[in-house]
Amino acid sequence: MTFPLVIARLPDGRVRLLDQTLLSEEERFRDLGSAEEVAEAIRSLRVRGAPLIGIAAAMGVALEAARAEAAGADGLSRVRAACALLGATRPTAVNLHWALSRMLRRAESTAGENLARALAAEADAIAREDRAMCERIGELGASLLPDDAVVCTICNAGALATGGIGTALAPVYVAHAAGRRPSVIVPETRPLLQGSRLTAWELSRAGVPCTVIADGMIASRLRRGDVSCVFVGADRIAANGDVANKIGTYGLALAARAHGVPFYVAAPSSTVDPATPDGAAIPIEERAPDEVLSLKGQRLGPAGVGVWNPAFDVTPAALITAIVTDRGVFPPTAVAGAAQVVAAPA
Amino acid sequence: MTFPLVIARLPDGRVRLLDQTLLSEEERFRDLGSAEEVAEAIRSLRVRGAPLIGIAAAMGVALEAARAEAAGADGLSRVRAACALLGATRPTAVNLHWALSRMLRRAESTAGENLARALAAEADAIAREDRAMCERIGELGASLLPDDAVVCTICNAGALATGGIGTALAPVYVAHAAGRRPSVIVPETRPLLQGSRLTAWELSRAGVPCTVIADGMIASRLRRGDVSCVFVGADRIAANGDVANKIGTYGLALAARAHGVPFYVAAPSSTVDPATPDGAAIPIEERAPDEVLSLKGQRLGPAGVGVWNPAFDVTPAALITAIVTDRGVFPPTAVAGAAQVVAAPA
Repeated sequence: MTFPLVIARLPDGRVRLLDQTLLSEEERFRDLGSAEEVAEAIRSLRVRGAPLIGIAAAMGVALEAARAEAAGADGLSRVRAACALLGATRPTAVNLHWALSRMLRRAESTAGENLARALAAEADAIAREDRAMCERIGELGASLLPDDAVVCTICNAGALATGGIGTALAPVYVAHAAGRRPSVIVPETRPLLQGSRLTAWELSRAGVPCTVIADGMIASRLRRGDVSCVFVGADRIAANGDVANKIGTYGLALAARAHGVPFYVAAPSSTVDPATPDGAAIPIEERAPDEVLSLKGQRLGPAGVGVWNPAFDVTPAALITAIVTDRGVFPPTAVAGAAQVVAAPA
Repeated sequence: MTFPLVIARLPDGRVRLLDQTLLSEEERFRDLGSAEEVAEAIRSLRVRGAPLIGIAAAMGVALEAARAEAAGADGLSRVRAACALLGATRPTAVNLHWALSRMLRRAESTAGENLARALAAEADAIAREDRAMCERIGELGASLLPDDAVVCTICNAGALATGGIGTALAPVYVAHAAGRRPSVIVPETRPLLQGSRLTAWELSRAGVPCTVIADGMIASRLRRGDVSCVFVGADRIAANGDVANKIGTYGLALAARAHGVPFYVAAPSSTVDPATPDGAAIPIEERAPDEVLSLKGQRLGPAGVGVWNPAFDVTPAALITAIVTDRGVFPPTAVAGAAQVVAAPA
């Protein structure tokens, strides 16, 4: 299987990332030279996917420590500013805040070490651990798939969303590598088409058969009776098992329940936020109306009409069969046991 | 309120229609000079909406009778050929077949009358009756709306889909005219965006406030608790009350049920097909993959991946609160009583 390079820390500290806004038509890398450039890339979704934006933000913080050292500036204050800047980019995914808390805690505990080197190592560790968590999710999730599984997903929770083989797609890749012939139903995921642009692209590259559908076709597709299960990612998992994920996930969960299709959430343990009691407490990002009313410079509707454009929705724990994390497969109500708590920096 | 001109029979028999593929950006009329041109307009969705394609097809048949007369050809055989051609354009909407059966029966019963004049009058009658049915649906449906109603629809079942003020949108227009301040949630309705391109456009022209959402946002929007009811159109209503309508309707119905939101179907009695016992017997048109993977010449995903693109789905009668027709408001299981039966031509 071939997976794309999605992110890398260059030897000089700059952050190289695949610009996901240009996929599936163009593969272009951008080398980012400041935390501000990383923040812009996160806000504009050049880099997206809850685990991956955590990694990107960590690399951005390490970059600022290196820049401060080169400039003879106070590293810790630059790191703190970078954490504040990067933490304000997107509100819903908790991995971002988890990674930044971890970087800041590390920065504040460098007793005599070189700050830049310590933070570079920490960012690399976050990326490496994410890759390992993806592998483990893949193994655990694959055991839930029958042979010849037809898996329905939404958005992109694959290699393009993580530092490894993905979360929701990891079980598919593990099953595919084992010759168990999974295939994937890919809702296009409007407004930004992460399904058709990203998931279909990475599955094709990996040689996994997939079928793209419009989001409105999900319920009708599940009704046909041949979908084995649903696997989706998560941007934040509340302590009670409610899950925030890409808008459309909740409707997919309702359709899965109506047709008796198991509904699995796959996420690294860094996505579980014990500080968020339930779905109602998860802040939901609303994005610009233009994302709905225009596409690649083409208008899709009349100017001036109202638009509602939440980027995420919340699926209640009651609709979730199980949550697959690197720390095990949990009933949603027990998922708090998987949390990776990073103590708040002093 | 201002409604667009969507179709007209010109004095020479040609069919003038608003090319709906170009909306909302451009209002361009096309004057069609043959049944073949009308068939092309139906296949390519320049004219769409179950009631409106019935009217367009009837006008196309009348046009062929006029052309036959001008050419000194056998009118009845040209009319039969036109009915066969037009009847093969789209399989799901039953109004098309209803209108063609009615035109053919009229053609076969012109004892001594001028065929072209008789069929022109019949096509005009079909259009006029459709306009009246829309008015009646609007009055009956408006009585189901509270003041300040927030109505969720899908696709376009408005003035652009009929010979009058629409079916699903007719109650909204009647309530708006009465100063009762309705507003409409408009799912964009991928892949062809009849919601954002057509419904938002005609509601804006009429001065009715609307909010466009992506289709994946429907369930989340209904969960907010302020949607009064759902009103959708229909392409075919089976004898048992199952309803074929634009793909996405079934998922909308599941979400409405999950949140206790009344789900109404609005359609002229010509949409009720007593010859179709249930939803499973309704043929569902599948359209080209390119409708999903490209938009206005822009690619939306990688070439070569699989696509499933059904144009319609079936909502079971059990999810429908009531069906509003010009002949009354029916529980879905009693809707066969509303059918307008046209005897098959001899």
